[in-house]
Amino acid sequence: MSAIRGKIAGRTLGAGDRLPSIRSLATTMGVSPSTVVEAYDRLAAEGLIRARRGSGFYVSPTVTSPLALTEVEPRRDREVDPFWVSRQSLDADAAVPKPGCGWLPPEWMPEAALRRAARALARTDASVLTNYGSTSGSLALRRLLLTRLAEDGIEASINQLMLTGSGTQATDLICRFLLRPGDTVLVDDPCYFNFRALLRAHQARIVSVPTTPSGPEVTRFEQILGSERPRLYITNSALHNPTGATISLQTAHRLLTAAAAHDLTVVEDDIFGDFEPERSPRLAALDGLNRVIRIGSFSKTLSASVRCGYIAGRADWIEHLVDLQVATSFGGPSPVATEIIANVLAGGSYRKHMDELRHKLTRTRRDVARKLQALGIEPWLTPRGGFFLWCRLAGGQDATTVARAALEENVVLAPGNVFSVSQTAQNFMRFNVAHMSDPQVWDVLRRALKGTPRTIGA
Amino acid sequence: MSAIRGKIAGRTLGAGDRLPSIRSLATTMGVSPSTVVEAYDRLAAEGLIRARRGSGFYVSPTVTSPLALTEVEPRRDREVDPFWVSRQSLDADAAVPKPGCGWLPPEWMPEAALRRAARALARTDASVLTNYGSTSGSLALRRLLLTRLAEDGIEASINQLMLTGSGTQATDLICRFLLRPGDTVLVDDPCYFNFRALLRAHQARIVSVPTTPSGPEVTRFEQILGSERPRLYITNSALHNPTGATISLQTAHRLLTAAAAHDLTVVEDDIFGDFEPERSPRLAALDGLNRVIRIGSFSKTLSASVRCGYIAGRADWIEHLVDLQVATSFGGPSPVATEIIANVLAGGSYRKHMDELRHKLTRTRRDVARKLQALGIEPWLTPRGGFFLWCRLAGGQDATTVARAALEENVVLAPGNVFSVSQTAQNFMRFNVAHMSDPQVWDVLRRALKGTPRTIGA
Repeated sequence: MSAIRGKIAGRTLGAGDRLPSIRSLATTMGVSPSTVVEAYDRLAAEGLIRARRGSGFYVSPTVTSPLALTEVEPRRDREVDPFWVSRQSLDADAAVPKPGCGWLPPEWMPEAALRRAARALARTDASVLTNYGSTSGSLALRRLLLTRLAEDGIEASINQLMLTGSGTQATDLICRFLLRPGDTVLVDDPCYFNFRALLRAHQARIVSVPTTPSGPEVTRFEQILGSERPRLYITNSALHNPTGATISLQTAHRLLTAAAAHDLTVVEDDIFGDFEPERSPRLAALDGLNRVIRIGSFSKTLSASVRCGYIAGRADWIEHLVDLQVATSFGGPSPVATEIIANVLAGGSYRKHMDELRHKLTRTRRDVARKLQALGIEPWLTPRGGFFLWCRLAGGQDATTVARAALEENVVLAPGNVFSVSQTAQNFMRFNVAHMSDPQVWDVLRRALKGTPRTIGA
Repeated sequence: MSAIRGKIAGRTLGAGDRLPSIRSLATTMGVSPSTVVEAYDRLAAEGLIRARRGSGFYVSPTVTSPLALTEVEPRRDREVDPFWVSRQSLDADAAVPKPGCGWLPPEWMPEAALRRAARALARTDASVLTNYGSTSGSLALRRLLLTRLAEDGIEASINQLMLTGSGTQATDLICRFLLRPGDTVLVDDPCYFNFRALLRAHQARIVSVPTTPSGPEVTRFEQILGSERPRLYITNSALHNPTGATISLQTAHRLLTAAAAHDLTVVEDDIFGDFEPERSPRLAALDGLNRVIRIGSFSKTLSASVRCGYIAGRADWIEHLVDLQVATSFGGPSPVATEIIANVLAGGSYRKHMDELRHKLTRTRRDVARKLQALGIEPWLTPRGGFFLWCRLAGGQDATTVARAALEENVVLAPGNVFSVSQTAQNFMRFNVAHMSDPQVWDVLRRALKGTPRTIGA
C-alpha cells in the first residue's frame, strides 16, 4: 500500500493511470498475489485507486483534488430557526463546547456496558448481524420495556408496544398516522424545538400553551381546545424540555378531562423520565393508553448513537403504525441496535448507572446555577432532575444575539426563541449543565453577554 | 436469582409481594449486598420483579400471565396487498422457509467481516458509541461511497451525498420533499411492492408502465409523461425488482430525454447494482445527478440488520433533505451502523465477498430455474445477476391462491399481484433462489400448485 501511495504522491502514477497487474507487482515486491489484491482493495476503498471489473486497477481521476475541509463544516450563516441548534450541535467538531445541545457527553454515558454489549454482539447469532428485524422490533426488548412501563403504572400488552428507529421517528409516525396538512397541533410554549421542525414538515398549523412549573397553563389549555380544536397535543410531562417543569396530578387530571371532552389525542414523550428522583404522574398512566400515546427512547440515558425509540398506545393504532413503519422504513429499528440496548438494560447495571447519573446531575445543576446567577442569568425554575436549566438573561439581553456571538467563538448555545412558537422567549436561554465544565465556555459566555465578542482571528 | 425464581415458581412469593431486603437476603445467603442488588436488577430487567424507587423490590403483578405465543405470531388472515410479503416474511419464525422474501440468508452474507467490525466497534472512540451522528452521516462512509459512485461513472461532490436510516427511508424522504397529496407518481409494472405501500402512505396517485427485458416500455413511457404528467418516476435500472430486467443504453437515453421534456424527476434505486456481472448503464451517470436522484443501501450485499441507506443528488436538494431528516429522525443513520459498514467496506474483503456471491448466485439461479421448469414454472427472463426469478405459473394458475396454500404449510411465497399496480400479474410469482435449498419448499410448492394443500395438522 505504501509503495503505491508513494508512486501517486511522487506523480510516478498520475490520475487515470493503470496500476501494475497483480501478478507483476507480486513478483516485483516478492509477496503473494493475494497480498497485492488486499492492498489494492484497501486503496480502492480509500478512493485512491479504482477497480474496473475485468480490467484491473487505475489511479482515481479525483486523486489530485482532496476534499476541501470547508465543504464539510457546518455553515454559520444559517437563520436562527427551529433547525439552528440541531444543525450547529450535530455537525460541530467534537472539540467545540456545546452547552446548547440536548444530550450528555460520552463520559457521562454507560461506556463500559456499551463496550460489553458490542463484544457480545460480535458473538451473537449470524441472523442478528445480517437479517432485517421483525416489524414491531425485538421481542426481548419489548418485554423489557413492558416491565419498565409497568413501573410507571402503565399496564400494556405486547401488541400495544412497537419499537421505532428513534424517538423522533416515533413522533413522526404518529403525526403521519393522525394528521392531514392544515390540521392544528398544540405544543407547549416553550417546547422542544424539533417538535416545531417536525410539525412544519407535516404542514400542521401550530398553536401553543404557556408552560408553568406544574405543566401547561390549564385554563388556557381548556380555552384553546374549545377555540382551536387541535387534533394532537405533544408534550413532555416529566422534566419538560426546555424548562424542566413537571406536570402536577391535578393539572394532569384537568388536562385529560378537557382532552376527552374535545376528543384530543395526547403524545406524551417520556424521554427524560428516567432522570426524575421519584416518579411523577404520567398522563399515560392516568389515561390507561386510551387517548394518550406514550413514546420514548434511550438517547439521553444509554446511547444516542444506538438509535431506537418506542410507541405504546391502543393496539389497533399500533397495528396501523407498524404498517406505516414498514412502508416508510421497511421495518423497525436495527436488530443490532436493539440487541445492544437489550443487553445493557438486562445486564443489571443500568439502574446503578442512572442512580449515579442523577446524583452527579444534582450537584452539577446546583454548581452551574450558582455560576450563571453570578453572571445575572437566573434559572426560571430549579428542576427536580435532568440536565437543562432554562434561564432568563439579565437586563433584557437578546439570546439570539448572544448565541450568534458565542458561535463566532466556537461555542454552541440554545437561544430561547428556537423553542418558542409565540417567539416570546427572546430573553431566555437553555443551558445543558453537563457541557459547561470547560472554562472556555464561561469566558465566551461572559464576552458574548457583554456584547463585545472577540472578532474572528483576534 | 435462582432462589428468588424458585420462591416465585413455588408460590412462596406471590404477585405484588415485597422481596426480602437486600441486606437481609445477603446475610441469609452469605453473599455480599452488591451480589443481591445485581441479582434483583437482572430479575427486574426480566420483568419477574419490579423496583419501586426508595421502597424495595416486589414480585410483578403480571408474573402469573406470561406472554401468550399467539400474541406475537404474524397473522395469516391478512389481505394479500402490497404489505403482505413484508409482514409474512419479516415476522415469520427464522425456521420458516421464505422463497418470497427479498434478502439473502445469513450464511450468504459476510459474517466474518461483520463480526470483525463488531469487535472493532467495542474498541472504538466512546463518542461513536454514545453520540448522535452528524446530520449528513459519517464522513468516512460518505467518502467510501463517493469512490463507489465514481466507479459507476457518477462524479459527485461530498455535499451531493447524504446517508439515511435505510434505502426505504431515502425514498421516503425524497417523496416527502417532492410530493404533495394527489401528485402522480410513475412506477414500473411490476415493481417492488413496497414502492406501492410507500406511495400509498404519501397519498400519491400511482400510474405504471410495463417492464420489458431492457427497461420500461419506452413508447408507453413517453405517452404517460404526456398524458399523466407524473412528478416522479421510481425505478431500479439495474437488476430490476422483481423481474431482473436491466435498462439498455438506448432506453435510458430516450427515457431521460422524455423526462427533461416533461420536467420529471427520476429516483434510481440501485440496491441490486453490486450483483451485476458487469456494470450496465446508469440513469444517474447519463444525467449527471441533475434530474436523477440515486439511492441505495447495503441491505442486500452486506447486512440488512445494520440499517443505512444513501441519497446522491443535486446539492441544493440534499441540503433540504438533510433538514427534513433532522426534523423527522433527528439526524442520519446510527454512527454504530455507519462504523460497521465503513469497517467492512474499507477492510478490502468486500469485493471478494461480492465476487463469490455472484458466482454462487449464477449457479443457484440456473439450478433453481431448471427445477422450476420441471414444474411447468417458466422464468420470464434469465437475469444477468441477483437472486430473483420472475416466473409465470403453468396453465393460468392463480399465484395468490398458491401463496395462500403454501403459507398454510409455513412457506412464504411472493405472488405476482403484490408487485403489480395494474393487477395483471396474477399468474406470476417472484422466487428468491437463495431460499430454495430446503426440500420442504419444493414439496409444499408442488402440493400448492396441484391445488391440494395439505390441511393443517394432517
